[in-house]
Amino acid sequence: MSGETVELLGHWASPSALRVKWTLKLKEIEYEYVEEDLANKSPLHLEYNPVHKKIPVLVHGGKPLAESLVILEYLDETWKRNPILPDDPYERAQARFWARFVDDKCAPSILSAFTKKGEEKEKAGKEARENLKILESGLGKKQFFGGESIGFVDIAAGWIGLWARMVEEIADVNIIDTETMPLLDAWFRRVLQVPILKECLPPQDRLLEHNKGFYKNLTGGSS
Amino acid sequence: MSGETVELLGHWASPSALRVKWTLKLKEIEYEYVEEDLANKSPLHLEYNPVHKKIPVLVHGGKPLAESLVILEYLDETWKRNPILPDDPYERAQARFWARFVDDKCAPSILSAFTKKGEEKEKAGKEARENLKILESGLGKKQFFGGESIGFVDIAAGWIGLWARMVEEIADVNIIDTETMPLLDAWFRRVLQVPILKECLPPQDRLLEHNKGFYKNLTGGSS
Repeated sequence: MSGETVELLGHWASPSALRVKWTLKLKEIEYEYVEEDLANKSPLHLEYNPVHKKIPVLVHGGKPLAESLVILEYLDETWKRNPILPDDPYERAQARFWARFVDDKCAPSILSAFTKKGEEKEKAGKEARENLKILESGLGKKQFFGGESIGFVDIAAGWIGLWARMVEEIADVNIIDTETMPLLDAWFRRVLQVPILKECLPPQDRLLEHNKGFYKNLTGGSS
Repeated sequence: MSGETVELLGHWASPSALRVKWTLKLKEIEYEYVEEDLANKSPLHLEYNPVHKKIPVLVHGGKPLAESLVILEYLDETWKRNPILPDDPYERAQARFWARFVDDKCAPSILSAFTKKGEEKEKAGKEARENLKILESGLGKKQFFGGESIGFVDIAAGWIGLWARMVEEIADVNIIDTETMPLLDAWFRRVLQVPILKECLPPQDRLLEHNKGFYKNLTGGSS
């Protein structure tokens, strides 16, 4: 099964697609990358993900899969080398818990801090900082969430280290508070310097321009 | 490990706690049930789930776990008998996809149809019906989402068959549209008649009163 063709439908500026790229890279899986035009979705994309109509979509041997965390687990179960989830069921559960926490709490509050205005923005910024402080408690004093090496939660949360700093710059809001979350701040710097992850990152200048454009369209440029 | 004590902190009217009760029952796992007072959370509850402060919490051998879908996977990995997830990685991914769809799309839209008013309520009702129609596409013509027997998605989504009908009655909104989703409607009836699931359901009269009280507090009684 792992010998069949692998395709990834993604977008260069998507953190969710980045998670899948990172996992494919870590597991040394060869794949064909298809860049999707999100303003003009391809028939193939809509056929493969009719439910959410979102990228990333992984197509393995002709069979499509959607939702980045679901794809990550699928890759981990199908290609056993360089596992990203631990063997122990309790540790696996903890990893799943923190990855969901990133998607259910951290990501929405960071997005709100980016897109809201005035009091709502202040409130979202505060929530984002509180959520990241909670996320830090899952890291503790470890090198990575996965322990000595990159694991499921590192892959699920690592993008925040790049995207949240851009949100801070563009929307003038504090997200990764270096004073109150020193361990998480250091982890963000560390994880994005891991060569295999760093080489998959989109060019930062281009991403900043892209996110500035997104912000301008959304807010008319004011914060 | 599976010989250690199992405790479930829950609430009798919680669909998420019901998922865990169903799984414990299906897997014939003996456990102690602790009913939590959600208006006055116990120190133990807050210690066990400091992140979300929500039930259910499963405590296995003194170690706590939160988030119902995470708990379900943990139970399935720790007690192998009567598996709820399929062996095949692609089918497992599909099951995880649909269970997340229930939590990310179906449940929030049903809750909104219950709690919003006027145009927002109409909109949420429409969204809830659209989401359930999509969920039906995951069932197709199968007996259960798990095929011939109860699986992960049946456990994740089954509560809707009871709760959504109460929402319809209390808030006067159409959710499970019998005309447009006959397969899902039949499945809801079928799944809640499975003896092992049926016997875990809360008393319907009491649940209806409880949900009516919730609705009254929230909306002042008007729809």
